[in-house]
Amino acid sequence: MRVPFETICEVVTEAFARAGMRLEDARTCARVHAESSCDGVYSHGLNRGARFVDYLGRGWVDPDARPTLVKKLGAIEIHDGHRGPGILNAFFAADRAMAIAAEQGAGIVSLRDTTHWMRGGTYGWRAADRGFVAIGWTNTESCMPAWGGRDTRLGNNPFVMAVPRKKGHIVLDMAMSQYSYGKLQVTRLKGARLPYPGGFDEDGNLTAEPGPIEQSRRILPMGYWKGSGFAILLDALAAILSEGLATNRIDPIGQGSCTGCSQVFMAFDPRQLGGEEFSDRVADGIADYVNSSVPDEKSREALYPGQSTLRIRAEHRANGVVVDEGVWAEVMALAGRS
Amino acid sequence: MRVPFETICEVVTEAFARAGMRLEDARTCARVHAESSCDGVYSHGLNRGARFVDYLGRGWVDPDARPTLVKKLGAIEIHDGHRGPGILNAFFAADRAMAIAAEQGAGIVSLRDTTHWMRGGTYGWRAADRGFVAIGWTNTESCMPAWGGRDTRLGNNPFVMAVPRKKGHIVLDMAMSQYSYGKLQVTRLKGARLPYPGGFDEDGNLTAEPGPIEQSRRILPMGYWKGSGFAILLDALAAILSEGLATNRIDPIGQGSCTGCSQVFMAFDPRQLGGEEFSDRVADGIADYVNSSVPDEKSREALYPGQSTLRIRAEHRANGVVVDEGVWAEVMALAGRS
Repeated sequence: MRVPFETICEVVTEAFARAGMRLEDARTCARVHAESSCDGVYSHGLNRGARFVDYLGRGWVDPDARPTLVKKLGAIEIHDGHRGPGILNAFFAADRAMAIAAEQGAGIVSLRDTTHWMRGGTYGWRAADRGFVAIGWTNTESCMPAWGGRDTRLGNNPFVMAVPRKKGHIVLDMAMSQYSYGKLQVTRLKGARLPYPGGFDEDGNLTAEPGPIEQSRRILPMGYWKGSGFAILLDALAAILSEGLATNRIDPIGQGSCTGCSQVFMAFDPRQLGGEEFSDRVADGIADYVNSSVPDEKSREALYPGQSTLRIRAEHRANGVVVDEGVWAEVMALAGRS
Repeated sequence: MRVPFETICEVVTEAFARAGMRLEDARTCARVHAESSCDGVYSHGLNRGARFVDYLGRGWVDPDARPTLVKKLGAIEIHDGHRGPGILNAFFAADRAMAIAAEQGAGIVSLRDTTHWMRGGTYGWRAADRGFVAIGWTNTESCMPAWGGRDTRLGNNPFVMAVPRKKGHIVLDMAMSQYSYGKLQVTRLKGARLPYPGGFDEDGNLTAEPGPIEQSRRILPMGYWKGSGFAILLDALAAILSEGLATNRIDPIGQGSCTGCSQVFMAFDPRQLGGEEFSDRVADGIADYVNSSVPDEKSREALYPGQSTLRIRAEHRANGVVVDEGVWAEVMALAGRS
């Protein structure tokens, strides 16, 4: 079904407000969930609304907690998120990084003991919309084996990079597994196979069948040993730079996804460095170079990260956001509308 | 054959000095090549010695050029490398980033118009040896198609992250392709297949046969679309932060690998943040968590990045560095010893 973007914002706001958030905070968080669905990232949009309400109800997210400064030194600040709403904490940290960058060219803010930030791309798009180059990541509880192991030891540690561009920002938002568990589920329900192998079955055979991977939880790091190594380093840096917890200490918390996690936000202001025009010219040059590729046998065009997002966003804004009926009914109920 | 580490340093120093470098600079660069071979990274160690000499001879690398400051603002500095020796330029930039971090907690140095830095991991190990957490990367000329394309548009853009640890640093050094062209060549010469598919043949079939990938140059980004996107963003950030060139403008230079490229070096000083003990405890916790994985069917132990490097390094230091006879003869000739 299709639901207008503004209607989603209203209904989710009501759901979050009923769960104990202040109206203004509920509105901010609701909009982020709506935007993720609008961008086609359903897994971290509307689909997460009920889970967030559940976390509020269990006391795993404190709706009234706000970040406090732990340390400030040069271009870097460390904040404690006190397990406040992950979106509000991450907005705070991203905005602080941008404020520092606007003064000093570069700003780095790390955040410890926060909660799920939902879609990582949110903070990349936000930075690019304000003219900043950005890098950000979070660590998470484990959901993936390290390369060479069979039990889960690594977080999916989403990693975001963003470059502002007048003709459309370049925004990368990637987790460390080749596919998400959500993608495995959706593929299995369709009775389909993954486009490329996505993990190992219980016996250690690489497979593109989603079911056996969901059972073994031996999901594949992107690029095999490379994604495994990258996940390990992102975890270490997030914990060290925020004086927070790494995956091995998030796992025992056992309060859902990302509760107690550590994040890093870096912003760079092209206006303080080579200038906005220069930065835009670089971004255009790269985007054009990629787009002018000779397409492969399966593609009409090689795209840069973020390019298809803008197409989906525009279509959804014009015709309503594609929403799963069950998910919508759930959110409507949480808003007291059914 | 095996050659003692110190002998490699001496001979390569002579080769580089004969090619026009000042003795002290030749010694520094020679040691880096020797260390890379000693760590088992032959592709960017001794094997690159002759090519570096060739670049000096062609005037593609200026042995006497040194970085000059373009801009300084807060924790970030931009330097112009003037196509000096990539190792010397990168040492300068990495050391400046560490010097800033030692004062301010975090330091960022970008470098434009530099030349090949050889092994990216060099700068990660160097930072970790000095107690710093580090991130660094370079862009390069294109060698890989963007996802959805069939002609090369992306650089391999090696990316490095390092965390100091008393029991052995955690150091990730990864290029954006699943395999290097060097690995393809070595595998082909052995008559073997790659462990996992490494690219597409001319007809767009994913294959683990190295030969057809070398011919098509359709080498696979790690994680398919993910490595493609990551390469694009690393390129953009390197060029924007250094006010330098992106891959699309490095390609037309046509003076070998990496000539004119842009690099970024970030350093963080745990001693200024949560303290060395805290940082070491985090790193230990992560390393132990990975190492205590239940091993998979093919492994004795899940390793963290850098762990096997230390084992190779120790073995090579004790018994001599494994060196290809042809490569050694070539370097001996360049040193005027044969």
